[in-house]
Amino acid sequence: MAHGSGGQAGHELMEKILLPAFDNPILREMHDGAKLDLSTNKIAFTTDSYVVKPLFFAGGNIGKLAICGTVNDLAMTGAIAKYISVGMIIEEGFPLKDLQEIVNTMRKAADEAGVYIVTGDTKVVNKGCADGIFINTAGVGERIKGVEISPLKAKAGQNIIVSGYLGDHSATIMASRHNLELPNVIKTDCAPLNHMVKEMLTVAPNIAVLRDPTRGGVAAVLNEIAQQAQVGILLEEDSIPVREEVQGFCDILGFDPLYLANEGKLLAFVDQEDTEKVLATMHKFEYGKNAKVIGKVIDKAIGEVGLRTAIGGIRIVDMPQGEQIPRIC
Amino acid sequence: MAHGSGGQAGHELMEKILLPAFDNPILREMHDGAKLDLSTNKIAFTTDSYVVKPLFFAGGNIGKLAICGTVNDLAMTGAIAKYISVGMIIEEGFPLKDLQEIVNTMRKAADEAGVYIVTGDTKVVNKGCADGIFINTAGVGERIKGVEISPLKAKAGQNIIVSGYLGDHSATIMASRHNLELPNVIKTDCAPLNHMVKEMLTVAPNIAVLRDPTRGGVAAVLNEIAQQAQVGILLEEDSIPVREEVQGFCDILGFDPLYLANEGKLLAFVDQEDTEKVLATMHKFEYGKNAKVIGKVIDKAIGEVGLRTAIGGIRIVDMPQGEQIPRIC
Repeated sequence: MAHGSGGQAGHELMEKILLPAFDNPILREMHDGAKLDLSTNKIAFTTDSYVVKPLFFAGGNIGKLAICGTVNDLAMTGAIAKYISVGMIIEEGFPLKDLQEIVNTMRKAADEAGVYIVTGDTKVVNKGCADGIFINTAGVGERIKGVEISPLKAKAGQNIIVSGYLGDHSATIMASRHNLELPNVIKTDCAPLNHMVKEMLTVAPNIAVLRDPTRGGVAAVLNEIAQQAQVGILLEEDSIPVREEVQGFCDILGFDPLYLANEGKLLAFVDQEDTEKVLATMHKFEYGKNAKVIGKVIDKAIGEVGLRTAIGGIRIVDMPQGEQIPRIC
Repeated sequence: MAHGSGGQAGHELMEKILLPAFDNPILREMHDGAKLDLSTNKIAFTTDSYVVKPLFFAGGNIGKLAICGTVNDLAMTGAIAKYISVGMIIEEGFPLKDLQEIVNTMRKAADEAGVYIVTGDTKVVNKGCADGIFINTAGVGERIKGVEISPLKAKAGQNIIVSGYLGDHSATIMASRHNLELPNVIKTDCAPLNHMVKEMLTVAPNIAVLRDPTRGGVAAVLNEIAQQAQVGILLEEDSIPVREEVQGFCDILGFDPLYLANEGKLLAFVDQEDTEKVLATMHKFEYGKNAKVIGKVIDKAIGEVGLRTAIGGIRIVDMPQGEQIPRIC
């Protein structure tokens, strides 16, 4: 508990674990707040808390989610993440070696994304009052000039691109939670998408909408956009990329991959004439090499998402009602 | 649990409780991240998580702490808070009426401070995996031009001003936790200090250091500064403002008010010649009306904080070692 205080033990936690792991010139100044000189006064600002269970899983841990999630949320507004804050709530008795591994992973993810962790806070709560560790990150990004992303810009004729296979993250967490064996190929897709997004917006500055299909999956995101923009969306079942192993997992447990959370995927609404060059750009990136068009925006069935099935029928993809998989991120 | 999902129940929580309470033009855009047009590219950025127990106490609740704490952290860097993010981790079964009261309080505190809550995130964890509600806030502020606050600027000859009575917040929480009766005058001092700080920096732009003595109290903050700036600090016991009722409380329970957390107080390191005008400015504000000089920076006893006692001896005020009062904020 003493590690959560403002005193000596709290300083040791900072000085022995957090500051060395996150070290950078801004953090070294040790203010209550970080002083930042941005290259623009047009910024984006976002936050997310992470409560994933288990904390460690194939391909990552809660720390990787916490960095990539916020980097990606900023990217989805057309902004390049620059600075991240980290707030940790730690349960008394949480192993320091686990904390060390988590912060090392966060540093690695921050380096890959090209962001600095510049300010933070640690609270410790009594045994039984939290579940290991919860992490909040907030992020400040610089908006790319000339880019105006908004769900309201979705309009009939645009293609909907997804950046890769759906459901890997959810399948990984579920398998880990229930001690199910999954083939090695299945691990979290958690990844920072900002470098790819920057390139996509360079070749096609008028991409209309960008969204990462996290909690609630593609179904939740597309329903939201259909309702906000008052358009219809039609997906082609044959085009939706799902790994065979994840599909099998879904078939057994009764899940639909369209509702599964992803942590390193994006959906882009792109004009017909930009589609080829956006896809070509995405294919150059590890995190976009399997990108493809999965559907399009239409001017019928306003506010609804439909799926043209393999046999030619159309099924409505509803907004998810309850929690499919709790504590997925 | 469904309220934590990306689906329908989560939308209802947003649309029925959070969005109406926090409503403002930026939040209404409903992006993953808020797009902000600042008046400067020189900003400050900070975060804090709040785990206070109990959640409701005399004079405030966790929501008021969460807004004021981040507003104040920004003020202590010489920045005026503009935008706040809110991340909530809620335990399954937490009463919606308590949540409503907390978010109403947050809105009220945000209005008083003149900040917008522009982006947020809500996670729900199973019963027993959190303790009611934890709230993280992060904040973006615009730095005041010409102001350069840094602990390294503490130097011999400066006066140390405190903005009012010490220990009210800690005494309130402790009393509430142990069902002790305290006189009505004792309630949390939690308050946004940004308006007063702005005025202080207008009359004295070269204030050297500003800090809010939260966890670890005045003792922790001054020890940190003495070590960072390599100066000594000498306090006058007779000058330290503590309410009689709080002092009595400390005497009974064996606490020292210098170590108690405050949530609406600041310490300012001010040049001799600026002291009178800074005090006069502070006295005009409700949250600074009891401001006074409590000590000064000296060039002896480097790295240490001393207290000249009422009978003329000098006692060393150490960095607090463990947790005096856990979950105080």
